[in-house]
Amino acid sequence: MAQFAKMDKKALQQTRVELFKRYEEYKSQKLKYDMSRGKPCKEQLDLSLDMMNIKDYKSSSGTDCRNYGGIDGIPEAKELFSQIIEASVDEVIVGGNSSLTMIYDTIARAMSFGVVGSEIPWGKLPKVKFLCPSPGYDRHFAICEAFGIEMIVVDMKADGPDMEVVEKLVLEDEAVKGIFCVPKYSNPDGITYSDEVVDRLGTMKTKAKDFRIFWDNAYTVHHLFGEGDKLKDILEVCKKSGNEDRVFMYTSTSKVTFPGAGVAVMAASKANISLIKKQLSIQGIGPDKLNQLRHVKFLKNMDNIAQHMKKHAEIIRPKFLTVLDILHKELGDKEIAWWNKPNGGYFISFNTLDGCAKKVVDMTAEAGVVMTPAGATFPYGKDPRDRNIRIAPTLPAMDELKKAMEIFCICVQIASIDKLLLDK
Amino acid sequence: MAQFAKMDKKALQQTRVELFKRYEEYKSQKLKYDMSRGKPCKEQLDLSLDMMNIKDYKSSSGTDCRNYGGIDGIPEAKELFSQIIEASVDEVIVGGNSSLTMIYDTIARAMSFGVVGSEIPWGKLPKVKFLCPSPGYDRHFAICEAFGIEMIVVDMKADGPDMEVVEKLVLEDEAVKGIFCVPKYSNPDGITYSDEVVDRLGTMKTKAKDFRIFWDNAYTVHHLFGEGDKLKDILEVCKKSGNEDRVFMYTSTSKVTFPGAGVAVMAASKANISLIKKQLSIQGIGPDKLNQLRHVKFLKNMDNIAQHMKKHAEIIRPKFLTVLDILHKELGDKEIAWWNKPNGGYFISFNTLDGCAKKVVDMTAEAGVVMTPAGATFPYGKDPRDRNIRIAPTLPAMDELKKAMEIFCICVQIASIDKLLLDK
Repeated sequence: MAQFAKMDKKALQQTRVELFKRYEEYKSQKLKYDMSRGKPCKEQLDLSLDMMNIKDYKSSSGTDCRNYGGIDGIPEAKELFSQIIEASVDEVIVGGNSSLTMIYDTIARAMSFGVVGSEIPWGKLPKVKFLCPSPGYDRHFAICEAFGIEMIVVDMKADGPDMEVVEKLVLEDEAVKGIFCVPKYSNPDGITYSDEVVDRLGTMKTKAKDFRIFWDNAYTVHHLFGEGDKLKDILEVCKKSGNEDRVFMYTSTSKVTFPGAGVAVMAASKANISLIKKQLSIQGIGPDKLNQLRHVKFLKNMDNIAQHMKKHAEIIRPKFLTVLDILHKELGDKEIAWWNKPNGGYFISFNTLDGCAKKVVDMTAEAGVVMTPAGATFPYGKDPRDRNIRIAPTLPAMDELKKAMEIFCICVQIASIDKLLLDK
Repeated sequence: MAQFAKMDKKALQQTRVELFKRYEEYKSQKLKYDMSRGKPCKEQLDLSLDMMNIKDYKSSSGTDCRNYGGIDGIPEAKELFSQIIEASVDEVIVGGNSSLTMIYDTIARAMSFGVVGSEIPWGKLPKVKFLCPSPGYDRHFAICEAFGIEMIVVDMKADGPDMEVVEKLVLEDEAVKGIFCVPKYSNPDGITYSDEVVDRLGTMKTKAKDFRIFWDNAYTVHHLFGEGDKLKDILEVCKKSGNEDRVFMYTSTSKVTFPGAGVAVMAASKANISLIKKQLSIQGIGPDKLNQLRHVKFLKNMDNIAQHMKKHAEIIRPKFLTVLDILHKELGDKEIAWWNKPNGGYFISFNTLDGCAKKVVDMTAEAGVVMTPAGATFPYGKDPRDRNIRIAPTLPAMDELKKAMEIFCICVQIASIDKLLLDK
């Protein structure tokens, strides 16, 4: 089929009739598929089943991991996770089962107490603003919204956030205290920040002395193809330019072992880590050390993790390729949609014609396929062009995924035709 | 030996010489005992070793506990923990490994967002005050101190906090937003609140509409003798008097299974729980469901938990009795110290003559026995009479415990003599 925009009204109407017939057929099947979140599938979870056989409870330091004690993780977990997150052992805190909680808690503490270098707690300021490269991760935006942090949309370019805009905003506005980054296989665009972007983020001048980069490196070892992308070490860049306290880095094993029962880690300068350890000793009794020990005994070392992640890739790569294949076949030459081809991570970012995303997601939902809500990839849930949809291919079984994507492509075409017909 | 106060100067000096000789002998042994925290001993931890054999990952609802999803706990955990905490299933949130974290997070959210019924977040008020029945739990006080919440000491009486004072303060001062309670086998006094105290707490008039009771029922099933004390259901009292949103209740399995890898639970009115669930969905991806499932499969039901707790009591009761025995033998008739005989919990609360506690703790530390710091049981670490010391008998082995208590009693006597000699 040709480009939709070049088709005349009658041809478009005829095409719509045919598409709608296919749509109704799918709808009558009363399907129930969930593609809303980046959830691993059962086969991926089974890759880590052996972890549940581990019954050790003594850490290498002799600590009984069953008992109280230890706020920043057991030594062998700090050792292994410092390698995953690419920092030194005294720059990491190994925590509980959620890096999102670590991020939320870091921001909550910044609001209540400030960070290293703050003159007053952020929550006492008249206004706090965060830069939000978008499309981005809805859970980051939800944290900002909860704390009343004003979000400023910054466009994502092919190699990361639009640094012209970032540099200008952080230089001129003291209220800009932070930026959210998913620097590797970004959510949802699958973009890995270029060395230049990392350099500029680490070295740029900021008006706020206590500006922070929230570096959510969730997909650091989550390659789909071969050795994957390389990301420059931002903590190192920050150190070299005298901005060592600027970055908070996070990652987890949520998509390495078990999403609900993984281990999260954060890294930052020694000064940052020292303050946070003090604050954590007020907040609780320390992370689940048994689960940390279980993870270390199972994951062993970086080579083994790389092998383990290859098994993940073998399961999910065919799903990504299937999505890309169906998108290409159904929409490839119609010039009504654009999407990325990521080297890793959990998503395919999909753009419709302006003003069609919400309609597409609603239509697919009516046919039994739940996608991530349109707009979710932008602050306040508002996509200014109403075009971005996040596709999460990992959870559904292959046959489900195929059907779901066919339905999706039908909906994209119908919504596009409806839009084009308005202009005819 | 007679009452110290009735001895003349010479007799006291002579006694001191003998005691100091014994002290020096112990000191030369270079002991290293830790009695600073209420930590279970290895034998207690071994009671739950079978929990590590549990490999189930499907919840009764069919949920794969390894994956994402669920913010308030898996159904069977909510079922069992609602019985432990004595609330209904829709009044509980089953969380991670620390009830202290749940308490901290509740207060952090109250400061940032307010609670049900708040007109503005507590953190936006010029002043927030909490009533702190003392002696009390140092980790509660540390949370207040971190958030700049002013702590007001309220005396503990034989059946709970001094309610005359509590009722007066909450009625006249709108800044009083909370009270910390460990209502059963209180930390450190081992007191269980009487029905009258529970009734008065639940029904009293408060000036602040969003006043909260932080009901840390940490030792609810932790009896030392038989069936243990009974505590009246405060949530029920609150409901009946139209104050259903007044209380946040907490407990955990930290001293049932593994302190570092247990499961915590909170309970409150449906309105409170509903708001908190919304807030938790911003903070993270939900608790470790595998650990919850492990706990349910291992603990099974309330009868089994009671049996399990009897095994704990069999291990730690002899330690409590040993401490009480040594205290009685060494100090019983000298009228220089007073202590409680708890029916449950983890501590013996010990009072010296006024002004002696710090000296006693310092002296025992010098002889290799680390006690909880003197003053720790009061807000800001300041015991106004410098007399309260928290004894935690559970962790040391029996022979260590005996030596430690002998050293402790020697130090109490020396410090008392030094005080009495000043007046001679």
